[in-house]
Amino acid sequence: MSFQLSKQYQADLERLVEWLSIASISSESKYAPEMKQAADWIVTDLNQLGFDSQVVKTSSHPAVISRYISKNPKAKTVLIYGHYDVQAPEPLDEWKTKPFKPTIIKGNLYARGAADDKGQLYTWIAAVRQLLSQGDLDLNLTFLIEGAEEEGSQGLAECVKTYKSELEAEVCLISDSHSLSLTQPVLTYGLRGLCYFDVVVETAKQDAHSGIYGGNIANAANELSWLITKLKDDGGAVQIPQFYRDVRKLSKKEKTELADYPWSIEDIILETGVAEVVGESNRSLAERAGARPTLDVNGLWSGYTGEGTKTIIPAKASAKISMRLVPHQDPNHIESQFKSYIQSLARPGVKVTVKSHLSEPAVLMDRDSQYFQAASKAMSQTFGNPPVYELSGGSIGVVSILQQELGIDSVLMGYGLPDDNLHAPNEKLSLEMFEKGIETNKVFLKSIR
Amino acid sequence: MSFQLSKQYQADLERLVEWLSIASISSESKYAPEMKQAADWIVTDLNQLGFDSQVVKTSSHPAVISRYISKNPKAKTVLIYGHYDVQAPEPLDEWKTKPFKPTIIKGNLYARGAADDKGQLYTWIAAVRQLLSQGDLDLNLTFLIEGAEEEGSQGLAECVKTYKSELEAEVCLISDSHSLSLTQPVLTYGLRGLCYFDVVVETAKQDAHSGIYGGNIANAANELSWLITKLKDDGGAVQIPQFYRDVRKLSKKEKTELADYPWSIEDIILETGVAEVVGESNRSLAERAGARPTLDVNGLWSGYTGEGTKTIIPAKASAKISMRLVPHQDPNHIESQFKSYIQSLARPGVKVTVKSHLSEPAVLMDRDSQYFQAASKAMSQTFGNPPVYELSGGSIGVVSILQQELGIDSVLMGYGLPDDNLHAPNEKLSLEMFEKGIETNKVFLKSIR
Repeated sequence: MSFQLSKQYQADLERLVEWLSIASISSESKYAPEMKQAADWIVTDLNQLGFDSQVVKTSSHPAVISRYISKNPKAKTVLIYGHYDVQAPEPLDEWKTKPFKPTIIKGNLYARGAADDKGQLYTWIAAVRQLLSQGDLDLNLTFLIEGAEEEGSQGLAECVKTYKSELEAEVCLISDSHSLSLTQPVLTYGLRGLCYFDVVVETAKQDAHSGIYGGNIANAANELSWLITKLKDDGGAVQIPQFYRDVRKLSKKEKTELADYPWSIEDIILETGVAEVVGESNRSLAERAGARPTLDVNGLWSGYTGEGTKTIIPAKASAKISMRLVPHQDPNHIESQFKSYIQSLARPGVKVTVKSHLSEPAVLMDRDSQYFQAASKAMSQTFGNPPVYELSGGSIGVVSILQQELGIDSVLMGYGLPDDNLHAPNEKLSLEMFEKGIETNKVFLKSIR
Repeated sequence: MSFQLSKQYQADLERLVEWLSIASISSESKYAPEMKQAADWIVTDLNQLGFDSQVVKTSSHPAVISRYISKNPKAKTVLIYGHYDVQAPEPLDEWKTKPFKPTIIKGNLYARGAADDKGQLYTWIAAVRQLLSQGDLDLNLTFLIEGAEEEGSQGLAECVKTYKSELEAEVCLISDSHSLSLTQPVLTYGLRGLCYFDVVVETAKQDAHSGIYGGNIANAANELSWLITKLKDDGGAVQIPQFYRDVRKLSKKEKTELADYPWSIEDIILETGVAEVVGESNRSLAERAGARPTLDVNGLWSGYTGEGTKTIIPAKASAKISMRLVPHQDPNHIESQFKSYIQSLARPGVKVTVKSHLSEPAVLMDRDSQYFQAASKAMSQTFGNPPVYELSGGSIGVVSILQQELGIDSVLMGYGLPDDNLHAPNEKLSLEMFEKGIETNKVFLKSIR
C-alpha cells in the first residue's frame, strides 16, 4: 500500500498540480506565455494568503517578489527562495506520463518541475497556509521566486541589488536539493564556486595540408592538448600557480564527518558507470567532492570531426575549461592566475585567447547559527533522524548572490530524493517527502520566531 | 600582353574546355550522370585517336582503361595515369567565373578541374595526338584514368589487381602536381605514406555533473589530451617505440639538395599564415617535409561544444590522428606499435579504442633510372632549366599501388603552378604551362622509345 497524503494537505496538492500543469520552460522563447502564466499563477496563489506580490523585470525572465508583513512590529523577516521555471521535458518518448499532466502513481507525483522546483517550493507555501489558518505565523515572510534558475540565474544578482530593501531578511530558506532517503535528511552548509572559460588556440590562418606542411608548422589540436595536459600533473593536482593557496583547511571533525558521509565508491560507479573512482589520495569521496577544488575540460573541438579522413593540420582548437572552487579561493584571483599561466605555456607560434563565462565564489554557511540548529532540530523531529551535514560539490547561484548582496546565509533543506529524475524524463516528487517537508517547515518556522 | 597558345594546340584547348564543362564531382551522388558523361567523353576522345577503351567498374566510381598498341611488336609500353573526377566547387560565391564554364582571362584558363587534373592530363593527350599525326609514336600507350581520386582513390588497388595484364608497363607517367614556376620544373621521386586512425577514449556511460562528481571520476577530454601529449616529447619527437627505427638515412648529396630546395620560411609563413615555422632542429624545411615522418591530430571532439556553458565531465572523447610515413617505415609495424603504445598509456578507468582508416607505405623511386633521366632532359630543354628533385610530403595513392601491384615507378611531372587554387575557388591552368607540358611530354615520349 503506497503512501497516502494527509487530508489536511490534499488541497495544497491540488493547487500544486494546477501549477505543474503550466509548461513554464525558460530555455525556449516560445514558452513565454506559459512563463507569464506560471508567474501570475503563483502571484494569485500567494495573494490569496494575504501576501502582497509583484512581478519584477530582470535581464532574463521576470521574478516574483511576494511579501507578508506580520502585525507584530518586532517580528523577524525570513526570505524563502524558489523558482517557477522548469527544464525542457525532452526526450518526450521516454516519459511514462505526460510531463505537464501531473499524475500520481504509487505515492509519487510525476510531472516536469514536481521536484525541481515547484513541488519543493510548495512545501513552504503549504506550511505557511497552515500556520496562517491557525493564526500561528509570527514572522514577516518574503518569497523570491525566479524564472531563470535553469538558465543559470541570469539577471538575478542585478535583481537582488535593485530590490535590496524588499528582500532584506535574517536568513534565506531554500528547498531545491535532496535528502538521502525518506529517513535520512541532509543539511547543506557549503557549495562550491565556479570559474568557466573558453580557451581558443590558433596556429595559422586556415587549416593546412598535413602532407605539404607536416613537420614544419604547429598543430592547434596538438597544442591545445599539450596546454590541457600541463594544467594538471600526473597525479591530477592542478598546476596553476597558487591554485591551492587559499583553500580552506578542514577541521578534524569536518574531515571525519565527510569521511562518514554515506556515499560509497559503489554508489559512484552505479550512478555514473565509471570503471573506477579516481581522485586525490588520502581524502574521502565527500571531501574531494565538496571541499577540494577541481579542474575539468567540459568540451573540446578542433579540425575535422566528420566520418572518414581529412588530412589537415588544424589551424584552430577550442576547449571549455572550468574549475570548481572552494572557500576561500577568490574567483578573480584564480581567473587571473589561470589566464597568465596558460599564456605562459603557449609555445612559439601559438596564440591563446581566453574568454571568461562565469565567475562565482564558493559559499560556506555558519552551520552553528540558530537557523541551522533550528533546521537540524526540525528535521530530526520529522524524519526521526538528525540530518547529515553536506558540503555540496555543485553551485547554486542565488546562495552566493544573497551572501554577497544581503549578507545572509541560506539554509538548504532538500525534499527531493536521489531518484527523482531531475532534468530527466519521469521527474517525480515523493508525496511522503512532500508531507515531511511541510511538517519540517512548520516546525522550523515556529521555532525561530 | 598575356601568353597566347600556339595555333597547333588550339584544337586541344577547345576539346579540354568541352571536357571541363562537365561537372564530374565524385563526392556527391547527384552528379552520377556527369561522372558517366565525363568518362564517356574521354573514351570517345581517345578512341578518335585510335585507342581501344573500356570503362571498368570499381568499388567506387568507374575507371577508364584505354590502350594504343603500336605496329612495332618490340615497342615499349608506357602507362599514363590521370583522373576525370574533380572537387566540389563550393563556395560558389567566391568564384569570379562559373566553375563549369571554362573562361580564359590573361593567359589562364579558369575552371574546376583545369589543373587538377583534367588540364594536366590533357597535356599527354595533346602530345600523343601530335606524335600520332606525325606518325612519330613508336610506343604502346595505356591510359588509366580514375574517377575517385578526390575520394582517396577508393577501389583503385582492387582495379589495378583485376586489370593487371592490361596495365603492365615499363613506367607510369603522372601529371597531377606542380612545378615551382614557369621556368623551374620539379621532378618528384618520393612520396610520404600515411597511417590514419580514429582514437576514442571512454571513461563512463554518460556525461556526469561536474559539481557532483568533479574530483572523483576521470574526464575523457582530459584523458584524451593526456594521451595526445604523450605521443610526442616537448621537442616534437614522436614517442611511439621504434617509430624512427626504419627511417631511411639520407645521403649527404640528398641532404644538401633538400637544403637547397627553393622553399623558405617566408614561403611557408605566406602560404599558411603561421607566425613561426617549427620543426626538427638541424634539418632543412624540405627534409622535414619529405624525408621525416610526422604525427598530427587532424580532428578532436568531446563533450559540450555549443555556446555558453555546460558543466559536465565528458564520458567520451575522440581524435583523428595520422602519421606521414617515409621509406622504409612499414605501415603495419607502425600501426601495431601505435596501438599497443596508446593502450599502454591508458590510465585507470580509461578505455581506449583505435580504429584504422588508412595504411599506405611511402614510395621512393629510382631517380637514376632512364625514365627519370629522360624526364629531366625533356624538362631542361623545354623550361630552360633542369628540374629540382623533390621528396613530396604528400601521398598519391596510385603511386604506391602501381609499385606494389605492377612493380613500376611513376615519374611525376607537374604542370600546375603553386597559385593554381587546387581544391579552392578560382582554380586555373596557365596556358603557358599547358604548352610547356605538351612540349615536354613530346620530347620525353620520343626520347624513351
